[in-house]
Amino acid sequence: MVNIEIIGLIAAAFTTSSFLPQVIKIWKTKQTKDISTTMYIAMLIGTGFWLYYGLIIGSLAIIAANVVSGFLVLFVLLFKFIYKTD
Amino acid sequence: MVNIEIIGLIAAAFTTSSFLPQVIKIWKTKQTKDISTTMYIAMLIGTGFWLYYGLIIGSLAIIAANVVSGFLVLFVLLFKFIYKTD
Repeated sequence: MVNIEIIGLIAAAFTTSSFLPQVIKIWKTKQTKDISTTMYIAMLIGTGFWLYYGLIIGSLAIIAANVVSGFLVLFVLLFKFIYKTD
Repeated sequence: MVNIEIIGLIAAAFTTSSFLPQVIKIWKTKQTKDISTTMYIAMLIGTGFWLYYGLIIGSLAIIAANVVSGFLVLFVLLFKFIYKTD
């Protein structure tokens, strides 16, 4: 019997770290034209609400996952403005 | 006193729907070169684990959010292969 919280932690690890390859790709190519700014603004607002939710219910996993996601999403947005190509 | 589950639903609505503007942007421009394939593969695996987690704990909100996210992420990946520009 698999501990269900392990499944949640694996899920969080994948969805949180998924933004890292995008940050690295932009860092290398300096190209952001095909990336939707609206997507990352919505994602940043969403992670903000998840962080608030995690703080209220006292879930360290939700807090940690959304602090990391939030920073990575913020990097994509900053890159989008720094390397403005469209 | 705000019902905390409302905060979770708002958070889920933002992070889930955030992929939609990216799908629409690719649909319009047919350009995907700046988008990281690795990011969307990791995100797809992550939403798969979240879906499994939601099914086990019986959370309709987690199930619905990850079915929607999974489809949108799959669309981005399909577009990435259809409109291969790099």
